[in-house]
Amino acid sequence: MKRYIAGVDLGATHTKIAVLDLRGRVLSKDTFLTKKYRKDSLIKAVAAALNGLIDKNKIQKKDFLGLGIGVPGLVDFKRGLVFYFVNIPDWKNVPLKKEMRGITGLPVFVDNDVNAMALGELRFGAGKGHKEVICLTLGTGAGGAVVTDGRIYRGADTAAGEIGHIPINENGPLCNCGSRGCLEAYVGKDYFLKDVKRGLRKGAKSIVINMAHGRLSGITPELLQRAAEKGDSFAIGKWREYGRHIGSALAGIVNLLNPELIIIGGGMSGAYRHIAGPIREVIDEKAMRIQKKTVKLARAKLGNDAGVIGAAELVKISAARGA
Amino acid sequence: MKRYIAGVDLGATHTKIAVLDLRGRVLSKDTFLTKKYRKDSLIKAVAAALNGLIDKNKIQKKDFLGLGIGVPGLVDFKRGLVFYFVNIPDWKNVPLKKEMRGITGLPVFVDNDVNAMALGELRFGAGKGHKEVICLTLGTGAGGAVVTDGRIYRGADTAAGEIGHIPINENGPLCNCGSRGCLEAYVGKDYFLKDVKRGLRKGAKSIVINMAHGRLSGITPELLQRAAEKGDSFAIGKWREYGRHIGSALAGIVNLLNPELIIIGGGMSGAYRHIAGPIREVIDEKAMRIQKKTVKLARAKLGNDAGVIGAAELVKISAARGA
Repeated sequence: MKRYIAGVDLGATHTKIAVLDLRGRVLSKDTFLTKKYRKDSLIKAVAAALNGLIDKNKIQKKDFLGLGIGVPGLVDFKRGLVFYFVNIPDWKNVPLKKEMRGITGLPVFVDNDVNAMALGELRFGAGKGHKEVICLTLGTGAGGAVVTDGRIYRGADTAAGEIGHIPINENGPLCNCGSRGCLEAYVGKDYFLKDVKRGLRKGAKSIVINMAHGRLSGITPELLQRAAEKGDSFAIGKWREYGRHIGSALAGIVNLLNPELIIIGGGMSGAYRHIAGPIREVIDEKAMRIQKKTVKLARAKLGNDAGVIGAAELVKISAARGA
Repeated sequence: MKRYIAGVDLGATHTKIAVLDLRGRVLSKDTFLTKKYRKDSLIKAVAAALNGLIDKNKIQKKDFLGLGIGVPGLVDFKRGLVFYFVNIPDWKNVPLKKEMRGITGLPVFVDNDVNAMALGELRFGAGKGHKEVICLTLGTGAGGAVVTDGRIYRGADTAAGEIGHIPINENGPLCNCGSRGCLEAYVGKDYFLKDVKRGLRKGAKSIVINMAHGRLSGITPELLQRAAEKGDSFAIGKWREYGRHIGSALAGIVNLLNPELIIIGGGMSGAYRHIAGPIREVIDEKAMRIQKKTVKLARAKLGNDAGVIGAAELVKISAARGA
């Protein structure tokens, strides 16, 4: 009887490895800095950390159903191939499923980190009981996952879900992806902070300047969130614009896919109470009658462990389907 | 052994009734003007036309697998409920499945006309052999259908597919639906013609003015298409703008859903050779590397019979699933 699952959240900054039970509970966990490693040594470090958890908990590898990995980047889910990984220079077209299986001996399943997070939220978090769900993660970029009939929708190349690269204006600002007017070019962390600093340089008044000790370079989303909580109208206004841009992209998705629920997660969703209102407002302005009446907005619930919980869920679902 | 299917295309202008075989071939067909009827008389007229075809072809009702109907408007596919019908004033929340079954005695399946058309194209037309497909119909409005894993994707309220109401600019022109910047507010027939006339009133030169005998009110999409075919640079430019707006909405869908194929149909797709290039151009500018490499663009193939063929396919698919 397989009782455990290994969940790995291969983040751009931190790599988290956890042992979970079949009910998605984290039994034991380890974390290290991702950027200390190159490709091969990172795979070995994950395997070593897993062995460490196995020893520490006095459990056995044969009791594991498998190992799930969530990766930020484009993943060929079927082949377990990771096309690129943001922070690791020699990471290109890595057959992660095959290499990780070779080194751990476990069945391995690899997916995009937002898809993994969506699986976790769907099973144990804000998405419980829902089948038609959109997930949006707000951080450096704006990632997305599309859930149809309770499953991750992957598209022709398992590349579906790029909500951050839906254009919201035909002639909008340049985006990292090479296009113009993408949602991410408004709400990606660096784009947003640049816009905030531009406003302050032009003379806007805000307590966030003092909170950053007078240095614009010290302004972070967290400081802006705290400023908004203190009632700072500049910060509230900037979060409002942030939310309205998101609302525009989501209104299009609501009309196109008629989802029941939109789950918002990621680092920048710390400002949820300042952005949820404006997001809803634009969905109500722009989406169609029946679609907007149905769709609900919710904040992701699983927080820091979402990545490993989702990665473990990936194993359960794939194993159940004999994938 | 059921050998026939009845397909009904309940169009805003014409209603078409056809008897088809199980391979989607139209054996016999009848057409009448929709707007001559109110709700109850329209349902009776469809039943009478079907009886006429049955008598004329010396076949029997018991040999029919069922009756499929495509309707322009919002349809609850599961219940066979049509929320509204554009041209018929007393048509509101009509349980068309139930009423039509009562009057014909056949199993009845009702769907949105674009979903029906998509089913037809998928089985017999441009979509043959594809599973991840987007259909866009260009006419008075811009309708859409989303096909995932070879099936129509319907969403939570069977209201999915509203491609025409994806916003392509946050502060774009007003749309009939009450929102701003929807794709339809650029490419719906009346919006497009208004923009064309505005250009001509401002003094743009074009042979289309002579083709309409000097009357701007006489300009139609067909005339603009013929002007473009004759090399008229104003007409070519307007179709180019038309195609680029469509490309913007489709680029977002390509990034979100990673489809294999986009099928373009409807009356305005007569200008396909003048819009396909600009559509492709914007997808190549705005969509992501893997998604845009995969996606193909195709013109709908079934033409005038697409509606009845699709409606018949709806019966086959639903009957096969025991729906």
